[in-house]
Amino acid sequence: MDCKRVLLSEKEMPTAWYNLQADFPKPLPPPLHPGTHQPLSPADLEPIFAKELIAQEVSQERWIEIPEAVRKIYAIWRPSPLVRATNLEKALKTPARIYFKDESHSPPGSHKPNTSVPQAYYNKMQGINHLTTETGAGQWGSSLAFACAFFDMKCKVYMVKVSYHQKPYRRSMMHIWGADVTPSPSHETEAGRQILAADPECPGSLGIAISEAVEAAVARDDTHYTLGSVLNHVMLHQTVIGLEAEKQFKLIEDYPDVILGCVGGGSNFAGLSFPFIRHKLQGKDIRFVACEPHSCPSMSRGQYRYDFGDTTKLTPLLKMFTLGHGFVPPGIHAGGLRYHGMAPMVSFAATLGLVEAAAFHQIECFEAAKLFAATEGTIPAPESSHAIRGAINEAIRCRETGEEKCILFNLSGHGLCDMGSYDRFLSNKLEDYAYPQDKIEEATADLPVVD
Amino acid sequence: MDCKRVLLSEKEMPTAWYNLQADFPKPLPPPLHPGTHQPLSPADLEPIFAKELIAQEVSQERWIEIPEAVRKIYAIWRPSPLVRATNLEKALKTPARIYFKDESHSPPGSHKPNTSVPQAYYNKMQGINHLTTETGAGQWGSSLAFACAFFDMKCKVYMVKVSYHQKPYRRSMMHIWGADVTPSPSHETEAGRQILAADPECPGSLGIAISEAVEAAVARDDTHYTLGSVLNHVMLHQTVIGLEAEKQFKLIEDYPDVILGCVGGGSNFAGLSFPFIRHKLQGKDIRFVACEPHSCPSMSRGQYRYDFGDTTKLTPLLKMFTLGHGFVPPGIHAGGLRYHGMAPMVSFAATLGLVEAAAFHQIECFEAAKLFAATEGTIPAPESSHAIRGAINEAIRCRETGEEKCILFNLSGHGLCDMGSYDRFLSNKLEDYAYPQDKIEEATADLPVVD
Repeated sequence: MDCKRVLLSEKEMPTAWYNLQADFPKPLPPPLHPGTHQPLSPADLEPIFAKELIAQEVSQERWIEIPEAVRKIYAIWRPSPLVRATNLEKALKTPARIYFKDESHSPPGSHKPNTSVPQAYYNKMQGINHLTTETGAGQWGSSLAFACAFFDMKCKVYMVKVSYHQKPYRRSMMHIWGADVTPSPSHETEAGRQILAADPECPGSLGIAISEAVEAAVARDDTHYTLGSVLNHVMLHQTVIGLEAEKQFKLIEDYPDVILGCVGGGSNFAGLSFPFIRHKLQGKDIRFVACEPHSCPSMSRGQYRYDFGDTTKLTPLLKMFTLGHGFVPPGIHAGGLRYHGMAPMVSFAATLGLVEAAAFHQIECFEAAKLFAATEGTIPAPESSHAIRGAINEAIRCRETGEEKCILFNLSGHGLCDMGSYDRFLSNKLEDYAYPQDKIEEATADLPVVD
Repeated sequence: MDCKRVLLSEKEMPTAWYNLQADFPKPLPPPLHPGTHQPLSPADLEPIFAKELIAQEVSQERWIEIPEAVRKIYAIWRPSPLVRATNLEKALKTPARIYFKDESHSPPGSHKPNTSVPQAYYNKMQGINHLTTETGAGQWGSSLAFACAFFDMKCKVYMVKVSYHQKPYRRSMMHIWGADVTPSPSHETEAGRQILAADPECPGSLGIAISEAVEAAVARDDTHYTLGSVLNHVMLHQTVIGLEAEKQFKLIEDYPDVILGCVGGGSNFAGLSFPFIRHKLQGKDIRFVACEPHSCPSMSRGQYRYDFGDTTKLTPLLKMFTLGHGFVPPGIHAGGLRYHGMAPMVSFAATLGLVEAAAFHQIECFEAAKLFAATEGTIPAPESSHAIRGAINEAIRCRETGEEKCILFNLSGHGLCDMGSYDRFLSNKLEDYAYPQDKIEEATADLPVVD
């Protein structure tokens, strides 16, 4: 019988990440200083990021070596399997071939450690022993805690207060790996104290947690800040996913016609897509679909312009698709897909016509997740279910047209720490919600015009 | 660099299970009828078990073919990796080589689907479309639900009521895979109604849930009962673990000196050990250590005699190490290691001097689990942490003696659905507890004497 999973040995793991910046037909718009609106210099970022990461952020090199120490930790779960979803194909009665890259087997359960490990490593090499970050549902925070455990670094996570109390499992994972987790807003930072003075019951937000984590990093010389998505160096580290997939397709003599990934900040989508976008730029006929919730439609309905990365306007301005930094995420269950912006590299690729966007409602995504779990076994993360929905819709179109397309999507993580969301789906407590257009107009009205 | 994980391709997956009964130097004592105390006939079991499984229960064949349909589902996560725990070795400064077989990557997260899949398959082949079972913490129930989803069978799980309310995540997993989950005791069965009439607030127990699941299976012609451990056919199916490990050690030209597994009913320990016990019977110098909690010390302090499998004396009598069917499990956190008995095959192997027992306290096991998570990444199931504790102790002894032993243990599952237990450990709320000897004497005093 044909093999269900296409496996690579550790020796076949990629030894360099791929940098799409080297192949963009024109330069990516640079980040701007929030005060002067001038392009940032590397020195502007040195108080909070490792020098090597800043260099990667602006690098035009096509290949950047993966350090051996990073590959040794990657080897705990990488290379990850490429899986043929034969049971799902049968259930859909589609002539299409469906594959997924399975990023759910890392210890924290998602693709996030592909970047938390190198981020911890480069900081450690520079003599930094303490990292801060923010986390919402906890996927990024737990991945950074995991990485810090391996490099014997302190890890401080500001976790959105409402998630801290409602999502105890990922908080506990961070504790097991030795991280210090503080519900945000907290009294530990000036930003937190100001918020709490105004509203002692404030449930917190990602924007506030970012402010606290950045402030805590700036306050100490031995401490840096880390981000789990959006930035160029994060996209770079995630390309290990697509580079492995490229080798795996070669082994089985197949090749994808369409590649899908869910998008919040954009990192898992970029990781799988960018190595194949390089082929598209070389003439290959291949489509890329970024799958997002209708409740947070930055790619499909946002504006492409300079905006802040956080709610409180502390970060540099990034050229990206945005719903406005004042975006208030509605209470949907795809925890990781609630950011107002989209990675500048993914956004730029979309403006160049390389990437399409598709938006889905949460109920149809949970339905796709349930079918996936019953046919392929794994219970997917609610975030990943957007990519599954997109892939299923492609496969259904193939059933109708008779096309034997090859569909590839990224299973960015499992849903074992998100069963509460599944419960609400199964008990019919979920409602669909499309983010109102007028709110986008309103939230982007006061953005600086710098183009 | 050497490879962290030893992987086999799907084509190298074993095609037959290994039956240790064929190689025992004398016959395994048979199960007895609870009324007549005479050996059971296959016909006695046909109302609740598939014929093929009953045949396997008593088979003396050395090799039993794994059906292709079963191997196709195994292929979702099998062959499982054999992992060298190099980071743990370094942390322990041991000259020992530590390996673990990683059973945590199945969709339900443990070794249990190695038997739930063939059990569902053989029943389906016989025209049975409905399976019942009991579950405590939910690992077995979720594995059976997973298997039934693949064979389009109905699955009914009686879940101990206190777990139903306290462990919602595994309950939700069962729902996602389409199972019907009922808190036990319930009003659906005579057994449940009797218990509730006497005590409407009864929190339930595994013994009561077994009674309900068996009654529900007997009541309907199209329905059978399934068990996730203890029985010979369950041990058989789990040997796929050890057979893979045997091939993996051949590939890397190494061989274990000692093999450890945690034991509740005995299935994951048996699965890894039995193929190597075959080597021991052929003269190999190799030790086998069954790791159990001091709070449920059936192997180290139980009596080897005929006892019932359930609390209410409905099941056949099994010759096994037992704490007495009246054993009341104390409130420790290793959910799966709370059964009063031990698999007859594992018990018999111990009486033949093939298997040793070791008991551990829960706090030292959680400490081992935390060290494992910080060095090897994966957060282990609390059950599995008993094997890790045992392996670490062996490695520490090697540090003291200078012996370069090869240690192999079974990582039977991950702990992502058990983070509540970790929370209690991290906040110092756990206490150690050794089951009192006089309670064992008391609970075994009224056992039938049939030897």
